[in-house]
Amino acid sequence: MKIRRSERLIDMTHYLLEHPHQLIPLTFFAKRYESAKSSISEDLAIVKKTFKMRGTGILETIPGAAGGVLFVPEISMADARKYIEDLCEEMSQQDRLLPGGYVYLSDLLGQPELLRQVGRIIASKYLGEKIDAVMTVATKGVPIAQAVSYYLNVPFVIVRRDSKITEGSTVSVNYVSGSSERIEKMELSKRSLARGSRVLVVDDFMKGGGTVNGMKSLIEEFECELVGVTVFAEAKFKGTRAINEYSSLLFVENVDTRTKTINVVPGNYFEE
Amino acid sequence: MKIRRSERLIDMTHYLLEHPHQLIPLTFFAKRYESAKSSISEDLAIVKKTFKMRGTGILETIPGAAGGVLFVPEISMADARKYIEDLCEEMSQQDRLLPGGYVYLSDLLGQPELLRQVGRIIASKYLGEKIDAVMTVATKGVPIAQAVSYYLNVPFVIVRRDSKITEGSTVSVNYVSGSSERIEKMELSKRSLARGSRVLVVDDFMKGGGTVNGMKSLIEEFECELVGVTVFAEAKFKGTRAINEYSSLLFVENVDTRTKTINVVPGNYFEE
Repeated sequence: MKIRRSERLIDMTHYLLEHPHQLIPLTFFAKRYESAKSSISEDLAIVKKTFKMRGTGILETIPGAAGGVLFVPEISMADARKYIEDLCEEMSQQDRLLPGGYVYLSDLLGQPELLRQVGRIIASKYLGEKIDAVMTVATKGVPIAQAVSYYLNVPFVIVRRDSKITEGSTVSVNYVSGSSERIEKMELSKRSLARGSRVLVVDDFMKGGGTVNGMKSLIEEFECELVGVTVFAEAKFKGTRAINEYSSLLFVENVDTRTKTINVVPGNYFEE
Repeated sequence: MKIRRSERLIDMTHYLLEHPHQLIPLTFFAKRYESAKSSISEDLAIVKKTFKMRGTGILETIPGAAGGVLFVPEISMADARKYIEDLCEEMSQQDRLLPGGYVYLSDLLGQPELLRQVGRIIASKYLGEKIDAVMTVATKGVPIAQAVSYYLNVPFVIVRRDSKITEGSTVSVNYVSGSSERIEKMELSKRSLARGSRVLVVDDFMKGGGTVNGMKSLIEEFECELVGVTVFAEAKFKGTRAINEYSSLLFVENVDTRTKTINVVPGNYFEE
């Protein structure tokens, strides 16, 4: 009997972690483990306590006949800040400097451990919000979108600058690229987003905000609602940004190609 | 004391799931839970048994001073086949048919639950292999690469058809696009792959195999080694394929634009 509880706790933990933001009725677990609902309730109380203590997330209990448990992954502000501060140091390394003052990021955005953390940090910002989809633009936004989508457990959609025959009919918008002030075009497969969806926009890097603004227009075209915008990193921008409300995990404060220094600090995600 | 074990099991499960393919010394857990190594050993035996019973994966125990435990996520052939068979049905739906006989897949490749399963299935094929990196080509291969990378716990790199200033120096190769027989170019950031790396190639869709063949050339240019190739779906191809050895989860056997039928069956992953 003691072993049975241990096994239930292990498998339950696995199941909850793989099904975040999904209401799971107690009867589901009772059936899965051939156990009484009262035992399952006790198990879940232990899981809840441990998840809270270890900063894994919140296990919400919804009472009633249509109730159950819902796991909401979370990271504390302190843990998030610590992680991002370490990342600032890594990103400030001289050898990341590219011609033209760009910062090399592609290696970071291919690391599973970093993506897990970034996904968890971004998802933690929207705990109370109803989100139906995560949106990003190809190519480098994709890993961020997928990472967030894993924690929110909602699909992500990829906006493209080049049309592809494998996307079917698309809806396109023109937007002003903030950095170069050129008019560009982006499009999204028509069937990828249902009308009325609540959409979270994420991207890897923001300068003028033109690309994000394009995604905002696209969300309007689809008669959807923008929930928020979070970017992995933002750069200092001299002009007026195309968007005002956004959140950034990292802020590339200064890039000096002559002295070969990059200065990265935590972004406005961490401001009050 | 009873509670303590419960808490350890829950947090241990979480930790192992988030750190697959990583050797974790027993002393790490002993310290984390302020517990004796003998207790930790007992805990791990329970986790091992449960993971095996539920098909979560294998918990390997490496004895000795430099030893510890290593979690290898896995899915049984039977579970994998069941999942893919359901997917075949979903992919055979008439409304996925696009002009030109293409099949719409983008919605599927944005679903976190599908990506988790596909990542686990692909990773399970390379259990005994040493893999240093997963490689794919932008854009639609990225979610597959990231999904696999989460389970193998190694970075993924993205080959691009268009050069970007944010990639730094790149190495490029020309390749023959199998479907159109045009010569195209693909490139990869020079610093993204270390010489001698063992690379697993994944992609969303394969027809003639030209793109995959391009990635093979690129792997040679980087003086790396190809471990294997697995694609999410392959289509029937009349000519001679540019590559012979590959694995596919799904096989699009037939697309008939006149009768509007798509026929998808499990791919050669499931053949002996």
